Amino acid sequence: MASIKPSVPKGTRDFSPAEMAKRNFIFDTIKGVFRKYGYQQIETPSMENLSTLTGKYGDEGDKLIFKILNSGDFLAKADEQALATRNSNQATLSISEKALRYDLTVPFARYVVQHQNEITFPFKRFQVQPVWRADRPQKGRYREFYQCDADVVGSPSLLNEAEFIMIYDEALSLLGLKDFSIKINNRKILSGIAQVIDKNDSIIDMTVAIDKLDKIGFDGVVKELLERGFTEADIDQIKPIILLEGTNDTKLASLRSALQSSAIGLQGCNEIQTVFDYVAACTPLTAKLELDITLARGLNYYTGAIFEVKTNEVAMGSIGGGGRYDDLTGMFGLKGLTGAGISFGADRIYDVLEELNLFPQSAEQTTQVLICCFDEQGEKYGLPLLQSLRSQNTNAELYPAGAKIKKQMEYANNKQIPYTVLIGSDEMQSGLLTFKNMESGQQEKLSVKDILSRLK
Amino acid sequence: MASIKPSVPKGTRDFSPAEMAKRNFIFDTIKGVFRKYGYQQIETPSMENLSTLTGKYGDEGDKLIFKILNSGDFLAKADEQALATRNSNQATLSISEKALRYDLTVPFARYVVQHQNEITFPFKRFQVQPVWRADRPQKGRYREFYQCDADVVGSPSLLNEAEFIMIYDEALSLLGLKDFSIKINNRKILSGIAQVIDKNDSIIDMTVAIDKLDKIGFDGVVKELLERGFTEADIDQIKPIILLEGTNDTKLASLRSALQSSAIGLQGCNEIQTVFDYVAACTPLTAKLELDITLARGLNYYTGAIFEVKTNEVAMGSIGGGGRYDDLTGMFGLKGLTGAGISFGADRIYDVLEELNLFPQSAEQTTQVLICCFDEQGEKYGLPLLQSLRSQNTNAELYPAGAKIKKQMEYANNKQIPYTVLIGSDEMQSGLLTFKNMESGQQEKLSVKDILSRLK
Repeated sequence: MASIKPSVPKGTRDFSPAEMAKRNFIFDTIKGVFRKYGYQQIETPSMENLSTLTGKYGDEGDKLIFKILNSGDFLAKADEQALATRNSNQATLSISEKALRYDLTVPFARYVVQHQNEITFPFKRFQVQPVWRADRPQKGRYREFYQCDADVVGSPSLLNEAEFIMIYDEALSLLGLKDFSIKINNRKILSGIAQVIDKNDSIIDMTVAIDKLDKIGFDGVVKELLERGFTEADIDQIKPIILLEGTNDTKLASLRSALQSSAIGLQGCNEIQTVFDYVAACTPLTAKLELDITLARGLNYYTGAIFEVKTNEVAMGSIGGGGRYDDLTGMFGLKGLTGAGISFGADRIYDVLEELNLFPQSAEQTTQVLICCFDEQGEKYGLPLLQSLRSQNTNAELYPAGAKIKKQMEYANNKQIPYTVLIGSDEMQSGLLTFKNMESGQQEKLSVKDILSRLK
Repeated sequence: MASIKPSVPKGTRDFSPAEMAKRNFIFDTIKGVFRKYGYQQIETPSMENLSTLTGKYGDEGDKLIFKILNSGDFLAKADEQALATRNSNQATLSISEKALRYDLTVPFARYVVQHQNEITFPFKRFQVQPVWRADRPQKGRYREFYQCDADVVGSPSLLNEAEFIMIYDEALSLLGLKDFSIKINNRKILSGIAQVIDKNDSIIDMTVAIDKLDKIGFDGVVKELLERGFTEADIDQIKPIILLEGTNDTKLASLRSALQSSAIGLQGCNEIQTVFDYVAACTPLTAKLELDITLARGLNYYTGAIFEVKTNEVAMGSIGGGGRYDDLTGMFGLKGLTGAGISFGADRIYDVLEELNLFPQSAEQTTQVLICCFDEQGEKYGLPLLQSLRSQNTNAELYPAGAKIKKQMEYANNKQIPYTVLIGSDEMQSGLLTFKNMESGQQEKLSVKDILSRLK
């Protein structure tokens, strides 16, 4: 067979042992916190029926769904006319029934509806699985990447929102972040703002403009609002809201005053207040918790709280987000089931921890000790030690006889193994083995018993 | 949108929280043992270039590879002639560049070749990821299932084979199996048998027949050998080998005698002996370790040891297998790199543990305690307890106020939560909360401090 220069498809990645150790550190930490708060793991198939996915992500999203070619003689059932006219879109439906998961949300909605009779509500689930998007690959954007989601469905309580804030706070703190912000907004506040200027139908236009405050400043926002059909009078009225400053309490007080004529706006304020009260009753946060009414992500499906998480230590987009939605499962015929959820951006968190050098060294040390022998006699001598180490649950390896000690040491160094035990003829005679700290280079002569207790 | 009855593609599965807990128990146990023996995790993309996969699994295998339709206007580059003649096979190459991983072995070989300059050899890697096959779905056979592999490449030492036996033994014991067999054979012994009857070219025919001894008995094997062109004289000569009985030592002695004229046959015996010696030097096994010369799986690629693992407690096919191969990476142009590997059949192990009732109850208990309140005052009272529990790393939930206690108890039962704490007006007045063991139904009045220490 001709030799092929091997590679992976563009936008996809291999993960080496060192990278996997770091990724596992992130995923294990987040999963542990999800479990602590009562969230349980599910998994759904990588493939869904194409009909389950299409129409859920907009026209642009539909194009980015990876479709799986039907097996066997797929052309036998292909749409004749679509083939003849080279209409790829139309042909797809006749030669592809399945597609790769595009996110974890739609499969979760499908799961809830399909298994509704087995599920105890409120259903608190988390899911950590890869998703696939036929996006143009670029720095930090991949065609296969993991999503890491927790959602609760069937519970309207705002305690859930408060717990999501605590989950973010605890998980990111455990990962080593020290300065990060959890921003919260509420769709009802945005509705209230639109209501007080009598522009209910323009809420999207309004929030899209306000959302850019960070980037284009107030004057830019004003310009955009004018372009989008808002009047000077409208802008005068919402100016104090857009420029809201001070503590969360101050902001809430100003909002209540500005939104006093809007029942829904006031309800949004009350909801935010309740979430703050829950958090305060539970725990002091490491995070800065910030009411930010310019936050408008996911506005087409969030109906209550909206979250976004950012680190303040590194320039990086959001590392998490979520919110409350009222009709996730409606797309599959189960109406009126309220839910809320959050997501961690694992790839971005990886980059942040790497940049801040926050991965614990232990995350990469999979083997604790390597037993190195000069010859077969040493190997034979070392095997019972190897066994004793493993019996006490110390991860241990013995380098098979026949390699030079230098090569064995390189192996230990490359694999970040912190300790080695050397067994030569002196060691076998005295029963005292050379125990080497690979980081400091320090060597000691120790009995098997002492080595075992050092590594326990 | 019209309501769709949601379902998953045939041959694929959702995993519920209870199933995930059990699956995690299996995977975490096996991964822990892999790590103890110095194996490190990698992951490869779900998609590989189609050219990486085709031609590696035989013609039948190629048909079972799930191909991914090229994105965008794929018909623009489609093979005109293939479309015109409705030649699906030929058309595939022009409309599909990528395919889903069919096993973990070929992607691993691709990984080793692609990253050979970053890898420290011997490279001991494990990999636990799903694979996809367009097989006809049937009981116990899925189109998406996890494989769970460990391989070492770049080390000819038979210590690796011995360690695979110990890995099987330790992992399956930790999973609770008490009576299982690890069968070992060596390709060189089979070559030796073919050599002594001067039928080197018919080794596959011979072993395929011998492999059926269990099912069709000796007379059946004889019949099949005759049909496949072996003579009565051949059969007389190999009869004692096929009917080998007794301890491993007895079998090895008989084999040495029968294979004395075959250098490769004797080498096979020596290799088996060395593996047995290594195991004996390390650890007493729970498993029955059996030399079984009828074992012939993977004969087209294994060149040395061949392994198969079976439970003796339940009727079930093999729950693990593997062997040594000498040219895994040759398909991608890197010659002469020897390797050995094993695989655990996770789905079958799941069924075995289920049938034997071996899953620990704790595997399903994700939340340790549920705090139940009669009203909002109780909720407020319970929040600091909730926080204290989580601070001491007890997985805890508080059922948001507003639900009847009966519903809260059902929630605890369905989620297999072992303890509940009830907070009503009596409890708040006395400071002694009702602590209920959900399995026994027993209730006690305990202070917050006592509850915390009970659940620590």
